[in-house]
Amino acid sequence: MGPIKLGVIGAGSAEFSAGMVRDICTTPSLAGSSVVLMDIDEGRAQTMHRFAQRYVHELGSSVSFEWTTEREVALRDADFVINTAQVGGHSQVERIRAWCEDRGYYRGFRLSAIIQSRFMVSVARDMERLCPKAWLIQASNPVFEGCTAMTRATSIKVCGLCHGHGGEYAIARVLGLDGSKVKGVSVGFNHEIWLTQFEYEGRNAYPLLDEWIETKSTEYWRGYRPHYGENQMSPAAIELYKLTGLMPIGDTPRNGGWWLHQHLETKRRWYGGDGGFDSEIGWAQYLENTNGRVDAIHRAVGDPSVKLTDLYPPKPTGEQHFPLIDALWNDNETVLQVNVPNNGAIKGIPDDVVVELPAVCSHRGIQPIQVGKLPDVLTLNQLYPRLLRAEQTVAMALHPDERVLLQMVLDDHRTKSWDHAVSFTRDALALPEIAELVAEMTRPTHPFAAR
Amino acid sequence: MGPIKLGVIGAGSAEFSAGMVRDICTTPSLAGSSVVLMDIDEGRAQTMHRFAQRYVHELGSSVSFEWTTEREVALRDADFVINTAQVGGHSQVERIRAWCEDRGYYRGFRLSAIIQSRFMVSVARDMERLCPKAWLIQASNPVFEGCTAMTRATSIKVCGLCHGHGGEYAIARVLGLDGSKVKGVSVGFNHEIWLTQFEYEGRNAYPLLDEWIETKSTEYWRGYRPHYGENQMSPAAIELYKLTGLMPIGDTPRNGGWWLHQHLETKRRWYGGDGGFDSEIGWAQYLENTNGRVDAIHRAVGDPSVKLTDLYPPKPTGEQHFPLIDALWNDNETVLQVNVPNNGAIKGIPDDVVVELPAVCSHRGIQPIQVGKLPDVLTLNQLYPRLLRAEQTVAMALHPDERVLLQMVLDDHRTKSWDHAVSFTRDALALPEIAELVAEMTRPTHPFAAR
Repeated sequence: MGPIKLGVIGAGSAEFSAGMVRDICTTPSLAGSSVVLMDIDEGRAQTMHRFAQRYVHELGSSVSFEWTTEREVALRDADFVINTAQVGGHSQVERIRAWCEDRGYYRGFRLSAIIQSRFMVSVARDMERLCPKAWLIQASNPVFEGCTAMTRATSIKVCGLCHGHGGEYAIARVLGLDGSKVKGVSVGFNHEIWLTQFEYEGRNAYPLLDEWIETKSTEYWRGYRPHYGENQMSPAAIELYKLTGLMPIGDTPRNGGWWLHQHLETKRRWYGGDGGFDSEIGWAQYLENTNGRVDAIHRAVGDPSVKLTDLYPPKPTGEQHFPLIDALWNDNETVLQVNVPNNGAIKGIPDDVVVELPAVCSHRGIQPIQVGKLPDVLTLNQLYPRLLRAEQTVAMALHPDERVLLQMVLDDHRTKSWDHAVSFTRDALALPEIAELVAEMTRPTHPFAAR
Repeated sequence: MGPIKLGVIGAGSAEFSAGMVRDICTTPSLAGSSVVLMDIDEGRAQTMHRFAQRYVHELGSSVSFEWTTEREVALRDADFVINTAQVGGHSQVERIRAWCEDRGYYRGFRLSAIIQSRFMVSVARDMERLCPKAWLIQASNPVFEGCTAMTRATSIKVCGLCHGHGGEYAIARVLGLDGSKVKGVSVGFNHEIWLTQFEYEGRNAYPLLDEWIETKSTEYWRGYRPHYGENQMSPAAIELYKLTGLMPIGDTPRNGGWWLHQHLETKRRWYGGDGGFDSEIGWAQYLENTNGRVDAIHRAVGDPSVKLTDLYPPKPTGEQHFPLIDALWNDNETVLQVNVPNNGAIKGIPDDVVVELPAVCSHRGIQPIQVGKLPDVLTLNQLYPRLLRAEQTVAMALHPDERVLLQMVLDDHRTKSWDHAVSFTRDALALPEIAELVAEMTRPTHPFAAR
């Protein structure tokens, strides 16, 4: 099929876009494609456009780039859309998080997930008008809730992608196994996937993991101070394995239950060192590192003496976005880890819930593997509770209702009483960041009373 | 079809059996039926047998009664079985409750529900052998979990019955409406039903309720001290109405959420007076009243000078058991409030979950009304969370697994930490009352560590 027209929403995300430029320029079958970089922040959009222009020039690539602050320009007649936008950026997320912490919710509450999901639906609705046949590839979070909301509310073909899989190699590394002889399959929901198949040299490798837990884990965790983003072999991950019978993969051990996240001390116990990726220490480190990489990109763009292809060598990043586009557009068939509507793949999960699992991707479309029934204990202890939380977020994104928000707060283990829940909910409804959502909210006949 | 053979499991429940004797003796179409009163407590079985013998004699009824301590005798070739048994009686429930309270679970944890559900399944399994075509009418609790477990694990036709409906009349009374002009339909799960239709003189009566809340509820609740069992117009019920858009009916306001039940003070705020039916005060009152009525029955049986038909006049109690039997057996068609597998009646609820709703009962069987889709806010805020808790209990009854029990404890809002959950679960697994269940438990490869 040859070149595509691609629209990128939130293209000011420097790190994502820098990777994306490398990936499209190193996919020969997409030569001649045109990309519209859209961001509401004009400066950022221009910066990434300059990056792309210089990169293409250095490489002699035939991919063309333009920039815009208008969503409509990026979407019109697109063949593919990638949405990597974070509403308000990290600063909004952190502002809302701090606001929640002041009210008793350590590390925040799920308000940003609602805001993001609602935003994603607005993009998919615009696509129905401007490029109804295009594929939407959802890169920013929450992939689970956002993709479920979009596929329910619109007719757009949606696929969520995430790099939080492949944790079987991290397990193998710690077990001292040769990664090239390891095979793993993980399924579930995004950030909630479980290793249903784990093989070493063609044989079930779970007994090797069990032996490691039995004989080596205690020693491994003595003075455990992993790099902040490494949690695949944390005490949290292993305890979740014990609780479900399957290993949680990638970002999955970051969730798991309130009991892992009560305060920094709890996080240290379960994630070691500084309390893992999501503690105040780990997350600050993540933001600092991210900002550092973004600054480096911006500096490189501002310095004409730098050769971008030296700093960012022209080879694929390993992200799945362009392998997916290449498979769907040019029929270069491949198996990828995707997030698409279940449609019967996992038994017991409704068809219109977006699940994460391996799928054959080709010109035929995205054809997930048939998973069948997962173990009852996994379904009961993790999948159903996680699905219920997702349904609340999806409901708030599609048909905002203050009674659902109140129930989300009541369900939170940190909520101390009815009065605490009511006052937090009322205050949250007054946040300027959700004013638009509140404006279209279903108003119950009777407001809640803090008796 | 004429007379039936009826087996009653747990017939030593004096109050239930006294009512049952009245009901069968006053159902003309069941003349000549034979009833086997079974209880593992020989004394109680004999007492209720004497009650029945004298009642029949006084009335000149042709119904015959025998007693047994053998389940098999009651079940063999039965046409109908009524299960009203409470394993270990109230004393076991109270003993386990006190044990839970010592460990931080005010008013107990869900252990007795597991024990009861497991017991119900064992009865249904015996019926598969001894009376495979009989109907099982489940009278004791938990009707929701027990009936769901039985219909999944066996081929027996199961119908749960409860008297916790008809709350629309209690609402009408407080609103000052003529009860004879009120019509209500309530659906959901047992002890979790919601008033989907509420009419007065053929018109939607919810606006009348709304007006009462607006203008009269504050005054009504001033110094609110209802009889311990009355909660239909409690602040708890009205707040649940606000949270879901439909009135909770009968026993429904007794549940609703952890925030209604944190301690006696909370219960007083929501249920008035002594904290409602399930507070330590309300429940003690319930047990005392029940014991008083049981003692009265026992005294009457022991006193040959008493005429039982004077004390317990021969008219129907209003319970649904014999109207149901009469409908199924003799085709005396009637609409009853039943608990049967959903099979598509409520959209979004799996087919093999037992729901409570009105049904046409006749020789054709039990044909529930088609409910369709309930409001999203009700489904999300009440039905799905309640269903998830039921699935845990059902799983523990059918395939006991300590990981599911631990998750149940973790999910409880009162659980303070992982260590609290692990120590409570471990101690619970050592309770003699669940030794049989533990013996057949799925043992995970790795026991949980209280790190």
